[in-house]
Amino acid sequence: MIKVNAYAANEAGGTLEKFQYELPKIDSEHVDIKVLYCGICHSDLSMINNEWGMSQFPLVPGHEIVGEVVAMGSEVKNLKIGDKVGMGWYSASCMQCNQCLDGKQHLCGTAESTIVGRHGGFADRVRGHWSWVTPLPKGLDIAKAGPLFCGGITVFNPIVLSGVQPTDKVGVIGIGGLGHMAIKFLKAWGCEVTAFSSNPNKKDSILKMGAHHVVDSTNPEDLDSIAGTLDFILNTTNVTLDWNSFLTTLAPQGKLHTVGAVLEPMAIPAFSMIMGEKSVGGSPLGSIALTRKMLEFCVRHNIYPTVEEFKMDDVNKAMKHLEDGKARFRIVLKA
Amino acid sequence: MIKVNAYAANEAGGTLEKFQYELPKIDSEHVDIKVLYCGICHSDLSMINNEWGMSQFPLVPGHEIVGEVVAMGSEVKNLKIGDKVGMGWYSASCMQCNQCLDGKQHLCGTAESTIVGRHGGFADRVRGHWSWVTPLPKGLDIAKAGPLFCGGITVFNPIVLSGVQPTDKVGVIGIGGLGHMAIKFLKAWGCEVTAFSSNPNKKDSILKMGAHHVVDSTNPEDLDSIAGTLDFILNTTNVTLDWNSFLTTLAPQGKLHTVGAVLEPMAIPAFSMIMGEKSVGGSPLGSIALTRKMLEFCVRHNIYPTVEEFKMDDVNKAMKHLEDGKARFRIVLKA
Repeated sequence: MIKVNAYAANEAGGTLEKFQYELPKIDSEHVDIKVLYCGICHSDLSMINNEWGMSQFPLVPGHEIVGEVVAMGSEVKNLKIGDKVGMGWYSASCMQCNQCLDGKQHLCGTAESTIVGRHGGFADRVRGHWSWVTPLPKGLDIAKAGPLFCGGITVFNPIVLSGVQPTDKVGVIGIGGLGHMAIKFLKAWGCEVTAFSSNPNKKDSILKMGAHHVVDSTNPEDLDSIAGTLDFILNTTNVTLDWNSFLTTLAPQGKLHTVGAVLEPMAIPAFSMIMGEKSVGGSPLGSIALTRKMLEFCVRHNIYPTVEEFKMDDVNKAMKHLEDGKARFRIVLKA
Repeated sequence: MIKVNAYAANEAGGTLEKFQYELPKIDSEHVDIKVLYCGICHSDLSMINNEWGMSQFPLVPGHEIVGEVVAMGSEVKNLKIGDKVGMGWYSASCMQCNQCLDGKQHLCGTAESTIVGRHGGFADRVRGHWSWVTPLPKGLDIAKAGPLFCGGITVFNPIVLSGVQPTDKVGVIGIGGLGHMAIKFLKAWGCEVTAFSSNPNKKDSILKMGAHHVVDSTNPEDLDSIAGTLDFILNTTNVTLDWNSFLTTLAPQGKLHTVGAVLEPMAIPAFSMIMGEKSVGGSPLGSIALTRKMLEFCVRHNIYPTVEEFKMDDVNKAMKHLEDGKARFRIVLKA
């Protein structure tokens, strides 16, 4: 048995307390990671607050993990002790279903989530199946890499999935933890990038991270001025917006894609899709292979989330910073 | 000036009356078609009733036209007098915008509709720009070909647009004029085809036209039994359905596509799309090139709408048959 020192919430909405738990002896296909850094994602907060009704307490959050391989099973062939690795929302998938065998392991019906029914990365150690423990490419800045494993791949995946081209004009709704990474990716992708933000205080930093335009989507005139121009819009918010007004900003065959889990059903007029062959889609994170490709892309283009670093022991201070909406733009805990 | 003998509605909801109008001397890029057959589409009825607020009276309906070239301008190079041709919802597009130049003439912002602000095919002659006057391939049965130019291409286009594969399991919602053609196309495409129909009287004919299964979508148990299995669902109805229940029948990365102009906004839960990378889209007809390819596909696979033939002079009888929901499955007027 291996003792793990972690931070856990003991009840819904609870603060994080020191918590020790034991991992059984490692089996043949698993890997133990010594946590060096762990990003904080808004879904850690959602899980602590049991917003999705699937939290089990004590709950150790943390699913934007970067660390070092300290133990591994006999059948793990792609890693070795001491390798720097990352692990995100998923810690395992069955590797046998059609989705897994087809390179879409993130769509596996029985994929294991790092912080659902097991313990995550606000800890000194975390375990995962070899398949979802991703080796970091040479040159990647490990202090900033954690958020790439959840927020990063979540916004990178739809760019590939939707076939976004460098010649495209694109938009990003909501410039927070996810949206700001989307802007950086799309800028490097070669696109003309419009950020939809209603917070004037963020404008300068949004332009600095690569957006060509900042549009206040709460202003109908601003939206009218770009009607029919965008090939792809990525929504990273989870609030109900006037979706049809965004459909109107799409060019023919344009796509509106949400990674934000908007709670109310989205109201999508059929006619707005039909006339321009437009579509609306959504996606969770991304596949194992795409995660690897994203990391290489980040090294090549020097793309990282804009991070604020807190010590792991200051985790409650960090969570409050996030909860107060003050994160600019992603928080990383240092072990 | 050329005199045209037609049938027109003189007011919204009016019956069709004999009507004569004059076409000016043909210009260099246009073609005159002697109408031999003209299908009746539900949108002819919608236009007669001015449901979309864009009808101009007198209104000559008819946009599923098959006939013979009887006159053409000096710059028309792809046709000759006597050619058998067809023309559908569009009679012209600008041929200069990005959409037209990119082979998506049906998405041209200034495309001319055959029965909007001009006169259609319930007549002995109709005019169109050469680009939208499509030569019929050898071997095509002209008595049944008319409906391919509107209903046919409307359901053929999304099959191509959505990248439907012969290995896919697909569904069609609403087995009427459009839906029954979709079943025939998808059967020939090699797919496993499920028809969603709540009319038990249609079941035998639906199976006969190629569907593998008929599912009553008003029965939740029927829908539950195919949860997570369909790669593509085509909606041909324009009524509000429980869209989320159809999303539930989709496999990962499945697509729900509507060609039915559902009036109320479609209620699409973001979470239902996100978890399986599902999407919802829509489309109008199809491009010029795809229309030609569809016609070749029809000849190769002997695919035609199931038609009921009426004489052009019995047009009001035919319209009533349609209005009463009795058409099985598409009406064609013979000149």
